[in-house]
Amino acid sequence: MKPQFITLDGIDGAGKSTNLAAIKVWFERRGLPVLFTREPGGTALGEALREILLNPATKAGLRAETMMMFAARMQHIEEVILPALSDGIHVVSDRFTDATFAYQGGGRGMPSEDIEILEHWVQGGLKPDLTLLLDVPPEVSMARIGQMREKDRFEQEEAGFFKRVRQVYLQRAGRQPERYAVIDGSRSPEAVGHQIEMTLDGHFGLNV
Amino acid sequence: MKPQFITLDGIDGAGKSTNLAAIKVWFERRGLPVLFTREPGGTALGEALREILLNPATKAGLRAETMMMFAARMQHIEEVILPALSDGIHVVSDRFTDATFAYQGGGRGMPSEDIEILEHWVQGGLKPDLTLLLDVPPEVSMARIGQMREKDRFEQEEAGFFKRVRQVYLQRAGRQPERYAVIDGSRSPEAVGHQIEMTLDGHFGLNV
Repeated sequence: MKPQFITLDGIDGAGKSTNLAAIKVWFERRGLPVLFTREPGGTALGEALREILLNPATKAGLRAETMMMFAARMQHIEEVILPALSDGIHVVSDRFTDATFAYQGGGRGMPSEDIEILEHWVQGGLKPDLTLLLDVPPEVSMARIGQMREKDRFEQEEAGFFKRVRQVYLQRAGRQPERYAVIDGSRSPEAVGHQIEMTLDGHFGLNV
Repeated sequence: MKPQFITLDGIDGAGKSTNLAAIKVWFERRGLPVLFTREPGGTALGEALREILLNPATKAGLRAETMMMFAARMQHIEEVILPALSDGIHVVSDRFTDATFAYQGGGRGMPSEDIEILEHWVQGGLKPDLTLLLDVPPEVSMARIGQMREKDRFEQEEAGFFKRVRQVYLQRAGRQPERYAVIDGSRSPEAVGHQIEMTLDGHFGLNV
């Protein structure tokens, strides 16, 4: 099997960190060579861009922010992802382009056609072989990230934001079911971990 | 006359700084409201991106670098250029997209079609109303920036680089002569300054 490019995505608070650990354990048990990386970041350039994006003093507009996400991704692909894959190493990335469609697109309103232009410019034909989409309702994610306060106007907007982000993730998964595995992240960590292991077993043809 | 968007461009050592001063004097004398800005930079975000681009520790590949130039430009347009123009203020930018075509394209080999895609994404229909192209032969520019050393292999590559950069500038000017004014930057500062004043007079219909 050629080296696989796997991404883990989902709204904040869906449980990515917990399940990255489970994925690491799965690869170790299977003895498969794997590189874990993340976006934005994953390269010195990406980390520097991430800091700029998080710094209120250098606030980027939505369109500039989207280009910076793709600049980081461009470097990430050239410096990390493609070299690993060509060395026969599987790659697992914590977030990838689905997050741009979900957050900058669904959440903040950037037209998906505009994102697709940059996606094609940066990735050419590169797409993940498998995307593990951790799906939880916004209420669950917001409770987990400690943003559950009284329902004022701001609160409702926040809920609406996460709802739109989630909707885009699910729409994309629905359109390409062969590439996405939707994992119900609201269940117990054990149940979620088990589903991820089964999904990876199935993807790698390692059903036991 | 609607507010004009004017850019000053040309290879390093062509004399941009000297002539920016002359342009400032021209606008002051004419009593026209004007904003001077520069690329990359011109915004807090652009300056931060510029620092990253100049830092060897966060070295960007050519494609990531090109995206970062356009991310800075996107912010520059939204935060500085368009607001000034819509307030009735003329804008003079030290470098703009021509530099990307010349340096990343001609100099470093990025296909111009790839640059055009990002240009359209970032600028939509925005193009400079007038581009003052300071043109000097590479020998002159290299002598001015103090890079004239013995002609070793590296030296010849450098000369080739500036030759390709200049060629793209001139090609672009040749294709759209109505937008570009090619200024011979190898003449005396007085002669160059005079040509710029005459060009601005002509562009603004202020021939005296």
